[in-house]
Amino acid sequence: MTRKNEQIILAKRPQGIPNMDTFEFKQTDIPEPEKNEVLVRTLYVSVDPYMRGRMREGKSYVTPFPLGEVITGGVIGEVIQSKADEFNEGDIVIGHLGWQEFSTARSNEIRSIDPDAAPISTHLGILGMPGLTAYFGLLDIGQPKEGETVVVSGAAGAVGSTAGQIAKIKGARVVGIAGTNEKIAYLKEQLGFDEAINYKTENSIKSALKQACPEGVDVYFDNVGGEISDAVISQFNTFARMPVCGAISSYNNTEPDLGPRIQPQLIKTRALVKGFLIGDYSSQYKEGARDLGRWLREGKLTYEENIVEGFHQIPSAFIGLFRGENIGKQLVKVADRNRS
Amino acid sequence: MTRKNEQIILAKRPQGIPNMDTFEFKQTDIPEPEKNEVLVRTLYVSVDPYMRGRMREGKSYVTPFPLGEVITGGVIGEVIQSKADEFNEGDIVIGHLGWQEFSTARSNEIRSIDPDAAPISTHLGILGMPGLTAYFGLLDIGQPKEGETVVVSGAAGAVGSTAGQIAKIKGARVVGIAGTNEKIAYLKEQLGFDEAINYKTENSIKSALKQACPEGVDVYFDNVGGEISDAVISQFNTFARMPVCGAISSYNNTEPDLGPRIQPQLIKTRALVKGFLIGDYSSQYKEGARDLGRWLREGKLTYEENIVEGFHQIPSAFIGLFRGENIGKQLVKVADRNRS
Repeated sequence: MTRKNEQIILAKRPQGIPNMDTFEFKQTDIPEPEKNEVLVRTLYVSVDPYMRGRMREGKSYVTPFPLGEVITGGVIGEVIQSKADEFNEGDIVIGHLGWQEFSTARSNEIRSIDPDAAPISTHLGILGMPGLTAYFGLLDIGQPKEGETVVVSGAAGAVGSTAGQIAKIKGARVVGIAGTNEKIAYLKEQLGFDEAINYKTENSIKSALKQACPEGVDVYFDNVGGEISDAVISQFNTFARMPVCGAISSYNNTEPDLGPRIQPQLIKTRALVKGFLIGDYSSQYKEGARDLGRWLREGKLTYEENIVEGFHQIPSAFIGLFRGENIGKQLVKVADRNRS
Repeated sequence: MTRKNEQIILAKRPQGIPNMDTFEFKQTDIPEPEKNEVLVRTLYVSVDPYMRGRMREGKSYVTPFPLGEVITGGVIGEVIQSKADEFNEGDIVIGHLGWQEFSTARSNEIRSIDPDAAPISTHLGILGMPGLTAYFGLLDIGQPKEGETVVVSGAAGAVGSTAGQIAKIKGARVVGIAGTNEKIAYLKEQLGFDEAINYKTENSIKSALKQACPEGVDVYFDNVGGEISDAVISQFNTFARMPVCGAISSYNNTEPDLGPRIQPQLIKTRALVKGFLIGDYSSQYKEGARDLGRWLREGKLTYEENIVEGFHQIPSAFIGLFRGENIGKQLVKVADRNRS
């Protein structure tokens, strides 16, 4: 029997939180690379909250995933056949590829990563998009200064945990918000956050914030939106900065997401709020990756990965993001490298 | 009988829209200037929406007006007695002084204005705080580029009408939002706005905006907040900029001001939202006033003033701001200059 290519298709646009009906497994033939293409065997698949937005029909910052087609996202793989001069069999590559066991990719759709410099999975995490997202959002928009108070929501996730650690590197006092006691312990004991707030067990996030931020909030790195953000915004100091990275609390909403309008508070504090996407910084990736790599080697940055094994685990790993259980980067390991 | 000094006191903190009970008239003796002080006779009093915030008890960006004391704001007056070297009798001065017929002021609390360069009242309007507010908010935060679409709310007011005209000077397509047909005609016919929307007669502000801004919104100069701003924000283009100058729709609210949370839209568009106060730009006032004065002389800027006469008209002129009737700058003329 010939080896087949297992794929995950967007079967249905989810209403609310995605479930198993959202996805469909499908088998096809393994594709043949054409000239200037390579065949990549998937090793790791990244599941990310932002992908929920692409499952929606309406226009978003990226085009929606088409129904009935393979879902695409961050993938690390191994080149197993090359018809492109730039790549050889055995190369480890990263790119925006499909949720499938085998992909063909044009040479300009992927880039090589050095498998000996750091664990290859880190290129989907702390050295990849999540790390760079934290780096540019915090440093370009948030611009934390020594002694300032930086609050990070979704603080135990791949982006939030990196943003908080970079703020510490810059000399800020860092307060994380997360939703389990395990995460709170991780933030304070492993990452050295100054304070951490469990929003699920606090009666009032605002009171908890007032206590954790006696001098107010200067920078708010926002991954979640909703009531948590309402509370943080209410504690802004004059000239606060708020990089808006994500709004996971609303991604699965079916009703309009209502809250207190923030304009009066922005006038009062002259705060700056700015949304961003990592793609806005593509011309500066090298600089960001260099700093992140150096901090990692120097032990100033640490990271967690939550890796589940098996191609069939991808849907449940994705759905799990919205239960708020993962610490650090959520990945699915699909296969081992050949060369090992 | 000796001439007395008529004053207006904050008698009661208003609930909702201020009314006549908010204010109390009081007579005192005309004060005596001390050394380094002058005695100023009030000529013009400025009434401004932001003053509503100071009538509230809670902390705001400025300290609340104390109950039982004279309300303070922008005043133009004439020096009628000077014990300060820098000022002579007859000088026309501007400062943050009281709602009263006579004030004493230390020499560092006021500055002279040239009564021959432009009508003196313009120093409370297009050449004063409202003009500078429009100038810095639009140019520093909004940064309109040629051909971009700029939307201004509260467009027929002192700040909004100037912001829209500066955007025209910078080559933008300008759409104003206001609440009477007279204002709409003023914006289009007198100020040369490309489109103007009467939010009180449109069934859907959003539909009207879509029609008036077929290429979306690049800059939104916000004076009003509330549902109008919700609609404008929904039409943002990528990298839109929103200087938040005022939120008059909520100043008299007694309930929390709820609306759709804007973070998802900010991520999608990577828009920037920033509150500001004119005081943030005090080091650059000269530059702003120079440009505004030049544009005025060149006929590129025009302005309206709505001047009511008589000290006793001050409360009703202030309350009238919230009925949205005034076009341009609302002033109260209290007295004529001696020297004329």
